[in-house]
Amino acid sequence: MILFNCDYSEGAHENILRRLAETNMEQTPGYEDDPYCNEARALISKLCQRDDADIHFLIGGTQTNFTIISAALRPHQCVLCADTAHINVHESGAIEACGHKVSALPTPDGKLTAQQIDEAWHAHWDDDTHEHMAQPKMVYISHPTELGTVYSRRELEDLSAICHKRNLYLYMDGARLGYGLQSEENDLDLPTIASLCDAFYIGGTKNGALFGEALVLLNDDFKEDFRYILKQKGGRLAKGRLLGIQFIELLKDGLYFELAAHADRLAVMLRDACLKLGLTTPFYTGTNQQFITIPDSILEALKNQYGFSWLRREDSEHTTVRFCTSWATREEDIRQLINDLTQLCQDSPQS
Amino acid sequence: MILFNCDYSEGAHENILRRLAETNMEQTPGYEDDPYCNEARALISKLCQRDDADIHFLIGGTQTNFTIISAALRPHQCVLCADTAHINVHESGAIEACGHKVSALPTPDGKLTAQQIDEAWHAHWDDDTHEHMAQPKMVYISHPTELGTVYSRRELEDLSAICHKRNLYLYMDGARLGYGLQSEENDLDLPTIASLCDAFYIGGTKNGALFGEALVLLNDDFKEDFRYILKQKGGRLAKGRLLGIQFIELLKDGLYFELAAHADRLAVMLRDACLKLGLTTPFYTGTNQQFITIPDSILEALKNQYGFSWLRREDSEHTTVRFCTSWATREEDIRQLINDLTQLCQDSPQS
Amino acid sequence: MILFNCDYSEGAHENILRRLAETNMEQTPGYEDDPYCNEARALISKLCQRDDADIHFLIGGTQTNFTIISAALRPHQCVLCADTAHINVHESGAIEACGHKVSALPTPDGKLTAQQIDEAWHAHWDDDTHEHMAQPKMVYISHPTELGTVYSRRELEDLSAICHKRNLYLYMDGARLGYGLQSEENDLDLPTIASLCDAFYIGGTKNGALFGEALVLLNDDFKEDFRYILKQKGGRLAKGRLLGIQFIELLKDGLYFELAAHADRLAVMLRDACLKLGLTTPFYTGTNQQFITIPDSILEALKNQYGFSWLRREDSEHTTVRFCTSWATREEDIRQLINDLTQLCQDSPQS
Amino acid sequence: MILFNCDYSEGAHENILRRLAETNMEQTPGYEDDPYCNEARALISKLCQRDDADIHFLIGGTQTNFTIISAALRPHQCVLCADTAHINVHESGAIEACGHKVSALPTPDGKLTAQQIDEAWHAHWDDDTHEHMAQPKMVYISHPTELGTVYSRRELEDLSAICHKRNLYLYMDGARLGYGLQSEENDLDLPTIASLCDAFYIGGTKNGALFGEALVLLNDDFKEDFRYILKQKGGRLAKGRLLGIQFIELLKDGLYFELAAHADRLAVMLRDACLKLGLTTPFYTGTNQQFITIPDSILEALKNQYGFSWLRREDSEHTTVRFCTSWATREEDIRQLINDLTQLCQDSPQS
Repeated sequence: MILFNCDYSEGAHENILRRLAETNMEQTPGYEDDPYCNEARALISKLCQRDDADIHFLIGGTQTNFTIISAALRPHQCVLCADTAHINVHESGAIEACGHKVSALPTPDGKLTAQQIDEAWHAHWDDDTHEHMAQPKMVYISHPTELGTVYSRRELEDLSAICHKRNLYLYMDGARLGYGLQSEENDLDLPTIASLCDAFYIGGTKNGALFGEALVLLNDDFKEDFRYILKQKGGRLAKGRLLGIQFIELLKDGLYFELAAHADRLAVMLRDACLKLGLTTPFYTGTNQQFITIPDSILEALKNQYGFSWLRREDSEHTTVRFCTSWATREEDIRQLINDLTQLCQDSPQS
Repeated sequence: MILFNCDYSEGAHENILRRLAETNMEQTPGYEDDPYCNEARALISKLCQRDDADIHFLIGGTQTNFTIISAALRPHQCVLCADTAHINVHESGAIEACGHKVSALPTPDGKLTAQQIDEAWHAHWDDDTHEHMAQPKMVYISHPTELGTVYSRRELEDLSAICHKRNLYLYMDGARLGYGLQSEENDLDLPTIASLCDAFYIGGTKNGALFGEALVLLNDDFKEDFRYILKQKGGRLAKGRLLGIQFIELLKDGLYFELAAHADRLAVMLRDACLKLGLTTPFYTGTNQQFITIPDSILEALKNQYGFSWLRREDSEHTTVRFCTSWATREEDIRQLINDLTQLCQDSPQS
Repeated sequence: MILFNCDYSEGAHENILRRLAETNMEQTPGYEDDPYCNEARALISKLCQRDDADIHFLIGGTQTNFTIISAALRPHQCVLCADTAHINVHESGAIEACGHKVSALPTPDGKLTAQQIDEAWHAHWDDDTHEHMAQPKMVYISHPTELGTVYSRRELEDLSAICHKRNLYLYMDGARLGYGLQSEENDLDLPTIASLCDAFYIGGTKNGALFGEALVLLNDDFKEDFRYILKQKGGRLAKGRLLGIQFIELLKDGLYFELAAHADRLAVMLRDACLKLGLTTPFYTGTNQQFITIPDSILEALKNQYGFSWLRREDSEHTTVRFCTSWATREEDIRQLINDLTQLCQDSPQS
Repeated sequence: MILFNCDYSEGAHENILRRLAETNMEQTPGYEDDPYCNEARALISKLCQRDDADIHFLIGGTQTNFTIISAALRPHQCVLCADTAHINVHESGAIEACGHKVSALPTPDGKLTAQQIDEAWHAHWDDDTHEHMAQPKMVYISHPTELGTVYSRRELEDLSAICHKRNLYLYMDGARLGYGLQSEENDLDLPTIASLCDAFYIGGTKNGALFGEALVLLNDDFKEDFRYILKQKGGRLAKGRLLGIQFIELLKDGLYFELAAHADRLAVMLRDACLKLGLTTPFYTGTNQQFITIPDSILEALKNQYGFSWLRREDSEHTTVRFCTSWATREEDIRQLINDLTQLCQDSPQS
């Protein structure tokens, strides 16, 4: 059984394990107040070209999302997002549990447009009864999205511009940020993201770390007392240096980007093979999540040997499923999957 | 200026004011623990044919909704409703502020169907990752809906049946319950509603009271410690008897239903006149809210003399607006509105 | 049975009932956007000598408290109060349900001192781990307190000064404000209170209104979007003018203060009679709540004819109870109580 | 500089690091659904002699506390605890942020007594206005307490009995559970704790793990849907097996208890040396936290070479500070500290 279900099936890159072992018996202050976290902060600031960034290390994505949203919004304010957004569908109501409405907008591909944001803003403020509605104050985007798609520089600039114009915060969930930045269609980089967003995070869990997300606060509004809220939400790791050390290893020499590039390359290899076999994808992307529409008969045969995840039925005979590669995926495993898919497609009368 | 904006522009029926004055200097215990509230409870129990009903008096609809939802749900559970539901669009995120997701389902007319509920249930429970989603546990319906439409007995039975089957609570927001029960299309009554819902409320604010909603808890799950939560949410009125007295006056001799019948009759008069003039309604109903699609030129002329509320633009020349009648609406005012509309339609080249 | 349990046993002053009846069929916009509310706001602004005050009308005290606290604090911030404070003991955890810790400080008489506030501030900020604690941001005082005691001008100035110095908001719960301002020991007035507090409310429920509290926001921090939060918390009354009309009647010609003076006078009459009988009070005050320590044998006899409320046992034979007078208390009832107490004390071997 | 500030200055026991490395490239399902977590669950069930225990692995103590409390309580319910309890003073208002009041009871030594619980229960239920108060429903104890003290078997039995009698849940925060179970005064064991508590956790972070707490749910009330709430609160680690592996290593051969015994032995060595020097401790205990009252002049000299944490000033010349040992403390460091303390005490005219 080879798992392509997700991008967190394995542990961490060996450099991280080695460095954790080397520093294991050092005594450091707790709660991210140690020299390793500070070194990681300096690295991230430099990569983002933002000396004024306030950087916090959290353990996972859901925690990161509800912590920043809780810190940023007043009780009556809501967050706009795509209907497929992680905060809307896969966090067990975590944002609402912090008191805030998640206002989901429909999208075909997981990406919000500047126009949608503007329309949502107008729908609120043009209504006489807006004081009886939750007030939009933050826009949440994921990059790449939950469907593997990415924002272009132009699209992100447009989103940022409308957010500024409408006095909305722009927050980017970067759980898979590396995979986006290394994808073939990418024209973004960290300094650009840092200049266009009010906050974003660099996801470690899904790209080489044991766990950990580096939250980068750019807007001063978020900085005051953030650590109180971090503590309140369970986000201050006692042995905080575990997070610092991991991000140092990932970022000091570009390992983070190498790992992502590896995963993207294998994902594209799979995608192209599928397309060549006549299979289709609803979301063409060069990132590590490949959504492929496959005849059910083939999936039936495939599922005994490979793990993948289910997205939706397309019709009575086809289903779209997701294959994830990661920093840890072996090229031989992808080749074997391609071979088996090829064989199954050839055996199948019509796909 | 004659206001048809809403059904709470005036005060209360004179019987209520008189009775409040008569009992004004009596000393009674606070917080709905007085003989008047108990008498009102007995009246409601009898009207619902449910001796076991637990009845609480609250001040307004938003408060009633978030109090019962807060009392009924565990932290990870959400409430299903129509996208037009009051809790989804007009309570400033009150349900989310109590920690719960509002999961809105699209409807053309404000009414949920049993099939939608079942599909939503399946969408949750059939998904391997359902523990990462908010769990549907309650269905919220408004009767009449925010669009003036009503559920038939058959529709409510179907909703109730699927809720029982799927272990969901069924809660009815009855802010305008009287107007529904007196409408021409109605085939429901209080005992039926009480037997099919786990909780519902009889709205007073919009039908003859100064304020007040009578929340009827049928399901034992909701009853324990409900008054703690009522207090916590600001819903225990110090001089609780004000609520008891109002519901006695409304319910002891059928005044509540007479007032609603009056409003419905005037609403239907307006509706039929509009249809005769060639105007249309997207939601044909016999309740007190009439949504009429009207040429903008006519609305322009109308708005200096009449208050009404805006629903949506239909195309570049037409807008749908709402006219509300109420227990307090004067027949002469409706007749004047019909006359003016008739005149304007005749003067208009094409409506 | 004559009730002295509380100050909300009866309805409202007759002027209010009359004016409600006179205006009953007028059509006004909902949710405190009507001319009556605006007139009441103007009256209050003038009485407070603060044109910039933002004034909202709510239904009850618990609701008023959790709404302002929810609007004022960020998630990690807490409110300091006396251990006897209403928000600490009698609101069913309403403040915590809005997410905020209530940090109660011990007091002998329900009154906080400036020194206590400063010490609490230091206890937080001098601690290295303060980011792991709830952060004090607001001071809640009740005036009069729940024990009937009042703050002097000097004490309130000191509290205000320390709050300014320590960047804390000062909020006064004025559920019984009138009774405080009319008490014999009072040296405060509305303009002074408005200049020293960031927010306070003028309580109507306990002093002549059917219900209603006028919340006066002085600090600009609280004003933005307050009405969203008011709606979210259930605090916008549909027929908002009911609140406006009541406060107009109470405040336009000083009725509010006359009613309070009446209650205070009767309370002092009772207090002085008790002291003369050799009974004692733990909280000497001229406001409408009189706490008297009475032998249990006498209380046993008394309780069949009079309602009063229980505070605490003092020793095996004595209990302190509370007698409340109000705007509605009849002098003859107080005289009868005094006579009966006198008789019982004389019959008792030793009190 | 040698740190005795806390028990989480270092990383993890070498067995854990080794095992993490060995299993690093295995593919496992996420979110604690893997074979390692299941193996760890089986170990814990066996150690507790409770096959029916429902066991969850969380990352830190604050998170564990607010997750179980949020899952267990209804909105109006509160948790009783000692005034020194971690949830009361060191979680930035996390419990309140989940909506629940923390009702702190005063204690001299961090330990609640059964009598206190019963009195608190009576104070609530004997009051006529209890529906206006937060309702006690859970008792939170820490074992050892934040002051290093431990409950005896008899004390825990008494607490459990009163909780059963009063329908309260008993929850034990076991952040330092190992240090308690290995202390010289201990007469408790895991099966006893599991039989007396409704839930408790076995703390890993402070005793040999990189991070991790094993929450053991005994009462069926807590089990349903617990994983939804775990996810909502950020407590499901994507690579959940990291937690499973750590607890396997700690528990399979008694390592957890050996590490704790080591720390306790060094702590007692320090304690006894201090007492011999004439220093005092306000909380005599055999666990890994030693609170010692020391002349300020000595502390001044000590603080340049040793880390320790501050508890409180005792008088103008003495302060009580805390020295923590841990699984990682070296005996030579404790000996050096004792030597330096001895030297300083001898040099000091009077301590």
